[in-house]
Amino acid sequence: ASESGGSGTKPNPSSLAPVNLDHGDPTAYETYWSKVGERSTITFTGDQSLSYFANAKNLCWFLEPKLEEEIRRLHHVVGNAKVDDHFIIVGNGSSQLIQAALYAVSPSDQPQPTSVVSAAPYYSAYQEVADLLRSGLYKWGGDAYGFNKDEPYIEMVTSPNNPCGMTREPVVNRPQGKIIHDLAYYWPHYTPITSQVDYDIMLFTVSKCTGHAGSRIGWALVRDKDVARKMVDLMVISTIGVSKESQLRAAKILGVISDSCLLDKSPGLENFFEYAQHLMAARWEKLREIVKVNELFSLTEYPSEYCLFTKEFTEARPAFAWMSCKSDMEDIEKILRGHKILARGGKRFGSDPKYVRISMLSRDQEFNLFLQRLSSIHGITSGN
Amino acid sequence: ASESGGSGTKPNPSSLAPVNLDHGDPTAYETYWSKVGERSTITFTGDQSLSYFANAKNLCWFLEPKLEEEIRRLHHVVGNAKVDDHFIIVGNGSSQLIQAALYAVSPSDQPQPTSVVSAAPYYSAYQEVADLLRSGLYKWGGDAYGFNKDEPYIEMVTSPNNPCGMTREPVVNRPQGKIIHDLAYYWPHYTPITSQVDYDIMLFTVSKCTGHAGSRIGWALVRDKDVARKMVDLMVISTIGVSKESQLRAAKILGVISDSCLLDKSPGLENFFEYAQHLMAARWEKLREIVKVNELFSLTEYPSEYCLFTKEFTEARPAFAWMSCKSDMEDIEKILRGHKILARGGKRFGSDPKYVRISMLSRDQEFNLFLQRLSSIHGITSGN
Repeated sequence: ASESGGSGTKPNPSSLAPVNLDHGDPTAYETYWSKVGERSTITFTGDQSLSYFANAKNLCWFLEPKLEEEIRRLHHVVGNAKVDDHFIIVGNGSSQLIQAALYAVSPSDQPQPTSVVSAAPYYSAYQEVADLLRSGLYKWGGDAYGFNKDEPYIEMVTSPNNPCGMTREPVVNRPQGKIIHDLAYYWPHYTPITSQVDYDIMLFTVSKCTGHAGSRIGWALVRDKDVARKMVDLMVISTIGVSKESQLRAAKILGVISDSCLLDKSPGLENFFEYAQHLMAARWEKLREIVKVNELFSLTEYPSEYCLFTKEFTEARPAFAWMSCKSDMEDIEKILRGHKILARGGKRFGSDPKYVRISMLSRDQEFNLFLQRLSSIHGITSGN
Repeated sequence: ASESGGSGTKPNPSSLAPVNLDHGDPTAYETYWSKVGERSTITFTGDQSLSYFANAKNLCWFLEPKLEEEIRRLHHVVGNAKVDDHFIIVGNGSSQLIQAALYAVSPSDQPQPTSVVSAAPYYSAYQEVADLLRSGLYKWGGDAYGFNKDEPYIEMVTSPNNPCGMTREPVVNRPQGKIIHDLAYYWPHYTPITSQVDYDIMLFTVSKCTGHAGSRIGWALVRDKDVARKMVDLMVISTIGVSKESQLRAAKILGVISDSCLLDKSPGLENFFEYAQHLMAARWEKLREIVKVNELFSLTEYPSEYCLFTKEFTEARPAFAWMSCKSDMEDIEKILRGHKILARGGKRFGSDPKYVRISMLSRDQEFNLFLQRLSSIHGITSGN
């Protein structure tokens, strides 16, 4: 890998600030929200939401009724998940809900902590969350493909998968297993909606759906009342619930998205999922073009499937690119870093250093800079 | 204990909804914030705060710079804590910061989890947080007065204390101790500010300072950079930071409070701490009157001390009343429950069932109902 081009006034790339695509910071949708304008604005007066309680009668007593309503409505509009027989638990991002779900499904009568597994490549945060406090209830157990013990286990199933964007099913399939479905990316801008899923525990997050990661709002759809109650217990002890401001703003934002999908409710409002799907498709097309003429890298390919929401056959356009070196010998994270592109190396996901996860959700400016720098590797273009 | 009075159209108290003073839900200040009006209002447009990041250059990269500024300003205005040599870490309420601090100061090389202790009566949540996930790093060790081991320990020092309102110092005072100072109630409406404290780890929360418990914003002042970094690590893994909406609103609210203390900045704005101090003093006076003529109960007494903020000698007016039965034989929580008053029994705080913690921060209506029901016990008045 070498940096090509560069003459005259062009600054030396090594002195440039890196493009940080390590996090999946979803700023790509800012322009959409600017265009939506007042419809998505919310105001809080000083005397609002002082109480810890949002609805003392609800099992999840800190959940704002308006947010619950808009979550249920959005799932009905999109058709990605069944919600009518599930409790809704709101969390400080889906991160906290992962912890709450692990806590709720871990058997409390085991001599050893229960293994938490996920098929590699798996979301790097699962290991961090599972091992953070050296819990006696659960511990990280690594790649689900390697789990073969006759004991309780918890399998995290991420579909579409973070980092690789593929549709996933449980892989362990042994007795005594509990499954947590992380569906953060199961939305029509990222992947074809192939069925209305209906699992026991399903995790979603506003961050990846609408782009409002700063709000830290996630939600769980939970079928079993005792599991739901234990999840609420964890949320209460660890943070006494979830910001009311974020919940009410998320309700507003989710409401706009649902409205944008319904022609009669949305004069002048562009369908959010169509907008985001086009944006992602255009980015993927540009990236694939550059990778195609490049001899070093390759990208995951996705099958074309029928999407129940768009009523079209489409391929996934994931929130992350899972890129690899064609050669097994290379450390792709290091190569990219040498070209001022920060991304997360495969080892963090239980995979090879020949893989890297690159966020596709940055602002246009950073995304274009990324393309420019990527295409300059191996002298494809002069990089400007 | 018997219920007296009640004739004609008066409903039977046993059929009435209970007054819930179990939580310290700080709705008492709602009226103040209504009067403040527009000055405390904040608006969010749909394209604001999408990113996870608030200030990528800060150690606490999810902390909004405006909130950091207003926290530092408020401590300067009130003079309750030194902030100039401390990092500020924002949390989802101080609950999460307790967990973060335990994580950060627990030695990682110990064969057994480090004991977390606090002098009884102690805040009931410490035990819940310490034992929640059966951590291998730390575990609840009970009353600090009983700790005498030659090994590392962590002492939670709550001053003024929750539940009893007394000023507290560490009580273990052995080598290998780490101390976390929980100063949630160290504000002039609750207690005389007798010195500008300057500890290694100090925890505060918006909930008890301004009444905005629904926002879930707490902050830690942390002297040591490595401890601060480890606290940030926990916040990132458990919730990827803290709601930007809540942070920005908290910044606004704290700004109003600071302004309200400065004559030139606040034409027409009533000094918040004076307002809240009068409100609390009036409630305490009413409660003490009722308890005085009652033969069953007694209340903690507080010394008069010079407050550096108000420049007056005052007694504490704590956020909770720590009430006891004069007789050792009684379960006061049960007695109150029989009179439709819900409060938290002494056992939860490592104390006797003859004690109970009662929130003094409810809305006027509930507080008056509480007084009414309390005074009806033992036939002091007819309870209407």
